[in-house]
Amino acid sequence: MTQASIITIGDELLIGQVIDTNSAWMAQELNKSGIRVVRRVAVGDVWDEIWTALDEEQKYADIILITGGLGPTADDITKPLLCKYFGGTLIVDEGAKQNVLDIFTRLNRPIIDRNLKQAEVPDVCTVLQNKRGTAPGMLFNKPHPSSLSGEGKVFVSLPGVPHEMKGLMTDDVIPALVKQFKFPAIIHKTLLTAGVGESFLAELIKDFEETLPAHIKLAYLPNYGMVRLRLTATGFNAAETETAISLLFENLKSLVADYLVTDKDEPMENVVGKLLLASGKTMCTAESCTGGYIAHLLTSIVGSSKFYNGSVVSYSYEAKKDLLQVDKNILLTKGAVSEEVVLQMAHGALKHLKSDYVIAVSGIMGPDGGTTDKPAGTVWIAVGNKENLQAQKLYFRFDRTRNIQLTATNALNLLRKFILSA
Amino acid sequence: MTQASIITIGDELLIGQVIDTNSAWMAQELNKSGIRVVRRVAVGDVWDEIWTALDEEQKYADIILITGGLGPTADDITKPLLCKYFGGTLIVDEGAKQNVLDIFTRLNRPIIDRNLKQAEVPDVCTVLQNKRGTAPGMLFNKPHPSSLSGEGKVFVSLPGVPHEMKGLMTDDVIPALVKQFKFPAIIHKTLLTAGVGESFLAELIKDFEETLPAHIKLAYLPNYGMVRLRLTATGFNAAETETAISLLFENLKSLVADYLVTDKDEPMENVVGKLLLASGKTMCTAESCTGGYIAHLLTSIVGSSKFYNGSVVSYSYEAKKDLLQVDKNILLTKGAVSEEVVLQMAHGALKHLKSDYVIAVSGIMGPDGGTTDKPAGTVWIAVGNKENLQAQKLYFRFDRTRNIQLTATNALNLLRKFILSA
Repeated sequence: MTQASIITIGDELLIGQVIDTNSAWMAQELNKSGIRVVRRVAVGDVWDEIWTALDEEQKYADIILITGGLGPTADDITKPLLCKYFGGTLIVDEGAKQNVLDIFTRLNRPIIDRNLKQAEVPDVCTVLQNKRGTAPGMLFNKPHPSSLSGEGKVFVSLPGVPHEMKGLMTDDVIPALVKQFKFPAIIHKTLLTAGVGESFLAELIKDFEETLPAHIKLAYLPNYGMVRLRLTATGFNAAETETAISLLFENLKSLVADYLVTDKDEPMENVVGKLLLASGKTMCTAESCTGGYIAHLLTSIVGSSKFYNGSVVSYSYEAKKDLLQVDKNILLTKGAVSEEVVLQMAHGALKHLKSDYVIAVSGIMGPDGGTTDKPAGTVWIAVGNKENLQAQKLYFRFDRTRNIQLTATNALNLLRKFILSA
Repeated sequence: MTQASIITIGDELLIGQVIDTNSAWMAQELNKSGIRVVRRVAVGDVWDEIWTALDEEQKYADIILITGGLGPTADDITKPLLCKYFGGTLIVDEGAKQNVLDIFTRLNRPIIDRNLKQAEVPDVCTVLQNKRGTAPGMLFNKPHPSSLSGEGKVFVSLPGVPHEMKGLMTDDVIPALVKQFKFPAIIHKTLLTAGVGESFLAELIKDFEETLPAHIKLAYLPNYGMVRLRLTATGFNAAETETAISLLFENLKSLVADYLVTDKDEPMENVVGKLLLASGKTMCTAESCTGGYIAHLLTSIVGSSKFYNGSVVSYSYEAKKDLLQVDKNILLTKGAVSEEVVLQMAHGALKHLKSDYVIAVSGIMGPDGGTTDKPAGTVWIAVGNKENLQAQKLYFRFDRTRNIQLTATNALNLLRKFILSA
C-alpha cells in the first residue's frame, strides 16, 4: 500500500508553544483517498535535523509531506534547504510573484523585498500556487534508485498556516497524488458510546473482536468520559470492502446498543443538533461554570441558528438574579451550586430564550472555589422542557479545562436522553 | 546538550481522529528543565513500526519518552513490546495491583481480569505508580554500548490519557531525569504583538536579528492575526544566560512597542483580565456570532469570576430583543449585523450584567448566511463603557472556526486598547 509520512517543521512544535493540528487534518484527508500515514515527525528549524528527516522518512514512505518553515523571516530555512536537497537553483516564479503582488494590493499594504522573495522557488519543483497566502507549495519528484519499475518518491512542501495548507492539499496535492499512485480503499466506521468504561466495553465485545478478519481492525478511542469504537477495513475492491465492514459495523452497533450515542464519527453536540432539527424544536442554555463553552460547542455547528436560540452565561450572582430570575434567598441559603438554583436557571432561560428545551449548569470547576461540602469539580446539571425539568449532581476530579469539557459533554448527553425519552 | 525525543503511539493519531496535545505539553515541561526536544514521532499500533521508532529515536536522543498504547484492550501492544525490546518478563507489580483495586473500589465498579492485567509490568523496568489511572508508567535504563563514560539511554513509557501522563511527568519522570542527567539552562522570553504582519515586523527588527549572538535564537510565531516573538537562550551558567537574554528582550520590546500586547507568553484574554483586576473593574459580553466563545476564553482563566460577570449569547432575534432590548425596528431595517444593533447589544449587556466594560459582537461567520452587502466574514464589534461606546466593522475571509477565533481576538484587543486609552 502506498504510504505517506508527514514532517512538520518548527521550533515552536518542539518547545510545545504550538499544538500541531495540521498533521491530524492532513492524515484525515490522505486516509479518505486511501493513503495510509505511517509516521509523523516533528523537527526544529535546524538545517541538519530537517535534512536527516528527509533522508529518514523516505525509508518508510513513498509520499513525504512537509509543512512549515516557509515564512518570510530568517528562521524559515525550509525552502533553501529543499533547493539544495534536490540540487536546484532558486528562481522567481512569475505566477507566485503575481500572487504576492495581488495579495498586497488587496490588503492595501506596502510591499517589501522580503515579501517578493516569497515568489522564489527551486527550479526543480512543480509550483503549487497558493491562493490564500504568499508562500507557494512545492512538489518534488525523486526517482527511486532501487526501484526497477521506476516508481519514485514524491516530496511536497506546504506552508504551515492551516488554511493555506488545507487549500493547497484539497486543490492540488491530493489530486496530484491520486493521479500518480494507485491507492487501495480504506474505510473507517466509527460509533460513539457514553456512560460505559473502555474495559467494560472490551468485555462486552470480546468475542466480536477476536473473530474479526485480518483486514479489519478495531480501535478504542476514549475521550471525555465517552468511548468511540472505530472499525477500519482495507482492500483493493472498494465495493467488497464496504460490504464486509458494513455487516460487522451493524453487528457491533447491536452489541453496544445500550450505550450508543451515534453511529457516525461526530461529536455529541451534533447529535443533539440533529435531533432538534429533525423535530423542528429549539433549545437554549443557562451556563454558570461552563462559562459559554456549551454555547460555543453548539454554535460551532454550521446552521446552528436553526435550533439554538442562545445562552445566558450567568457568571455572577447578579446575572443569575437579573437575567434568569433566580431567587436571591435561595442563592444565599442553598448557594449557587445547588439543585434549586440550577432548576431556576433552567426555568429562567426557557422563559427568556423562548425555547423548547434547556440545559442549565452550575458548578465549581477549580482549582479555586471548592469547599468541604462542595469540592472543586462538583456540578449540578438540569435538562428538560417547560413540563418537566430534571436535575443531576455530578462530580469531576480533573483540572479546570477538563472539568469544563466533561460538564459540557455530560449535560449534552443528558439532554439527548431527555429528548429521546420524551 | 541532553536531548529528548517523544514517541506517541496510536492509530488514531495517524488517521487524524485525535489531535496530539500531549507532546506539546511534554515538550514545554522538558524545556523548563533544560531538556531540548529534538524530534517528535507518531507511529501506529503496529509492532514493527513501534520497534523501528525505538531503534531510530535513540540515534538522536538520550531520553526517549513514549506515550499511548497502554490501555486494557487488544489494540494496546506497547507493554508486551517494551517487555520484549528490553528482554524482560511480565510480572505483577503489587503496588500497581493495589492501585487498580483502589480505583475500582472508589468507582464502585466490578473489576474484571482485563483490569488486573494493567498491573503487569516487565521485570526490567522501574515502575512509576499512576495515581490517576490503572496503567503504571515504566522507566527503562539502557546502557549505551558506544559510551565510554557508561552514560546510557533512558526510555519512559507513559499512558496516553492526558491527565495521567501529566501527573506522572510532574511527580516522577522530570525529577528522575534531572537526577540522572546534567542539563543546561534554556530560557525563553516571548512577547505578543497585534495589528502588524510578520514581514513588516521582520523589517522593523532586522538589525536586531542580524546581530543576535549564536546562543540566542529568535522565532516568529504568527497566530490569529497576532504575532508572538520568542527569544531562546541556552547556556550552562543560568545567571549569565538570564542576564544576556533579559537585556536583548528589553531591546526587542522597545523596537516593537507600538504593537506590543504583552511581554509574557500568555493569550490576549489574560492581558484583558489582568488589566481589569489591577483596576478593580468588571466586564461583560453580548455575543451573537461568536456564540459564547469570548465568554469561554475569559472563563477559562482561573479566578475570572473576579472580573467577568457573564454574557448574553443572543443567537436569535428574540434573544437580542428580550434580553438586550435591541430595538425591533432597527433589527428589521438595519439587520442584526449592523453598527446600530451591536451598539444596542453593548448597551443592553452593560445594563443587565452591571459591568464597567463591555464587548458586543454581531456578524456572519459562514459558510452560510452571507449576502452581497454583508458577505460571510463580516462582523461588527463594539467595546466601551457607559460613557463611551465605539463600534468597528471588520471582515475575515476564513472558515467558520477561524472567523470565530479572529473575531474573539480582535474584540478583546479593541477592549484592551479602550481600557488603556480611557
